Amino acid sequence: MVSTPAIVAREPKDIGHPNWQIEDVSVSEPGDNEILVEMIASGVCHTDLVLSSLPPGYMGIEYPKIVGHEGAGYVKQTGQSVHSVSVGDPVLLSFHSCGSCSQCDDDHPAYCDTFARENYIGRQGSVTTTNTGDKPWARFFGQSSFARCSVVDESCVVNAKGLLQSPEELKLFAPLGCGFQTGMGAVANIANAGAKDVVVVLGLGSVGMAAIMTAAIRGCKAIVGVDRLDDRLALAKELGATHTLNTAGSDMDLAEAVRALVPAGASLVVDTTGVPKLLEGGLEALRQRGKLVMIGVPPPGFELSVKATEHMNMGRSVMGCIEGDCIPKEAIPEMIRWYRDGRFPFDRLITYFEAHRFDQALKQLHDGSAVKAVLLWDSRE
Amino acid sequence: MVSTPAIVAREPKDIGHPNWQIEDVSVSEPGDNEILVEMIASGVCHTDLVLSSLPPGYMGIEYPKIVGHEGAGYVKQTGQSVHSVSVGDPVLLSFHSCGSCSQCDDDHPAYCDTFARENYIGRQGSVTTTNTGDKPWARFFGQSSFARCSVVDESCVVNAKGLLQSPEELKLFAPLGCGFQTGMGAVANIANAGAKDVVVVLGLGSVGMAAIMTAAIRGCKAIVGVDRLDDRLALAKELGATHTLNTAGSDMDLAEAVRALVPAGASLVVDTTGVPKLLEGGLEALRQRGKLVMIGVPPPGFELSVKATEHMNMGRSVMGCIEGDCIPKEAIPEMIRWYRDGRFPFDRLITYFEAHRFDQALKQLHDGSAVKAVLLWDSRE
Repeated sequence: MVSTPAIVAREPKDIGHPNWQIEDVSVSEPGDNEILVEMIASGVCHTDLVLSSLPPGYMGIEYPKIVGHEGAGYVKQTGQSVHSVSVGDPVLLSFHSCGSCSQCDDDHPAYCDTFARENYIGRQGSVTTTNTGDKPWARFFGQSSFARCSVVDESCVVNAKGLLQSPEELKLFAPLGCGFQTGMGAVANIANAGAKDVVVVLGLGSVGMAAIMTAAIRGCKAIVGVDRLDDRLALAKELGATHTLNTAGSDMDLAEAVRALVPAGASLVVDTTGVPKLLEGGLEALRQRGKLVMIGVPPPGFELSVKATEHMNMGRSVMGCIEGDCIPKEAIPEMIRWYRDGRFPFDRLITYFEAHRFDQALKQLHDGSAVKAVLLWDSRE
Repeated sequence: MVSTPAIVAREPKDIGHPNWQIEDVSVSEPGDNEILVEMIASGVCHTDLVLSSLPPGYMGIEYPKIVGHEGAGYVKQTGQSVHSVSVGDPVLLSFHSCGSCSQCDDDHPAYCDTFARENYIGRQGSVTTTNTGDKPWARFFGQSSFARCSVVDESCVVNAKGLLQSPEELKLFAPLGCGFQTGMGAVANIANAGAKDVVVVLGLGSVGMAAIMTAAIRGCKAIVGVDRLDDRLALAKELGATHTLNTAGSDMDLAEAVRALVPAGASLVVDTTGVPKLLEGGLEALRQRGKLVMIGVPPPGFELSVKATEHMNMGRSVMGCIEGDCIPKEAIPEMIRWYRDGRFPFDRLITYFEAHRFDQALKQLHDGSAVKAVLLWDSRE
């Protein structure tokens, strides 16, 4: 039993707004396939906010819960069946997969049969809050890394022993396990984009910026970044965008605006926003054989209308995407190699916050002054 | 100027029902890139019916026109820029492509920038009706092969000189250039199906049967044929279907019925019907990373609703498909090789009719007693 501070998500008072607070919790011993990790850092992803601000019961989600799914830290203790890491190893955490369903067998763990249950809901039992004795839902994405110490499932762990040039890098690499790999994989795995592609990226958070950088690495002939913030658009240009569009404060017809920049239209639209109007406009902006890749979480119940005859004649595709269809043990080292080559400068997108200042992190994510917030657990509050 | 009988599609008296009649027409000399072909046979495809029974003006379609786009015959005369065939060569006809747009450059001629205009609408000028002096819209799919003699564009021509073991085969191979290649290419090119795939084919006409045969060639582990006719379902089983579903006379929930046969759901659904309820059910029947390939012509204005969150989480794709994304010069010889190996017995699906008995062909296509009708031009009526 280990005592540790954690960000506990209590039932939201206001649906859509997470109700997080730092609490002391005790964490039980790791089970057979589990690992006790002391976190150094945890990236904050939009999914942490979404899945801790829904009404209780929706999608099976219950409170209290501990979210966080871009963790990085050191192995403190291992269950008896764990073979991939040893005590003292640095680790980067990604998502849970069962390893035995047909999707896992086919090397597509992001579509694991158990994905929603194990990653979005998690499990109860390993964590107890000190003050109230509640049993929060933990093992969110196999890890619940918004805690200094957490019991994580081996399936979500990437051993970082051979990946670090300095201990400092561990906190830098924390967010590679979800947002960045998702944007990267959308371009590299789902769309397999290349030199002939004209890519439009809707929303320039960490997922969108990773898509921009990956499109640049793939040599795509045009890369259009779309956002509402001029700062983001300027940054996207530095990271590889050839064109930008600011959708703020206008009734812009997205498809028309895209065609004004790239007359034949887009061969790939990566949506990281989930905004219905942008999804609809993105679909209309596609040329023949163009692909709309859906990553952003749309409003509950939203249905995208696909004009059937046009879709068929144009040979378009509308494709769902989770985690960029990545295998984290391959995707994370790949992004680190690109980073060292100077081609994936994701370090420019990161703002660090002490973990107990998570409110400040949320504020800056909301106002856009932080692209990717990373919480640090190394100063004991 | 050549005089020839042709099936002339006059403005439909009843929208949705073609108004065809045999008329004598005169055909002008071939232009630079054109070829005068004497047809031996022309397959009848559902697209011939659809695109000659729409209201005038819809999609740019005008009357009178001459349809037919699965022609086979012999070269009678060539324009001066024609290099791929010589007078006397047997030819199989497919679709028009411009050869110079970016889609053609990328070897995806079925998504040619000019596809709709050149294939669905065609051109006026080369044909004159003898009785009325009208100038029918011709060069439908580059060929307007519902005529004994027609001036066709070189881009739609596959030289069959090296493909035939007997002259009789020319009429058998006529329909390979559209319906069969579309079903084949949906499975082989668009979905690239393999041994792990569970394939559902909606509608067992020639396109659907080609999809069934191709899935069997690809070794797909389950192949479910869906139709309303027991005869078709029995035939599909002989051609490679492992399971069948008859949707006639019931309020079947397609997704449930598919899951009763293949519990994890389908990894590929090929829709050849365009029926909204089947498209919707087919989408619901998909497992993770499953693909819905849309081939069948849906009702004008139909929009398929895609549940955005579910689509994303499941990693599903909704993909439009024209001509199976085939390159006819490659696809047709491939299907002929499979036919000779006994793996693509499309000959079992063909019923021949004298061209002047096209009404009987339409009747048997409608009642389901013919899967693929081929009109023969060799008896001079």
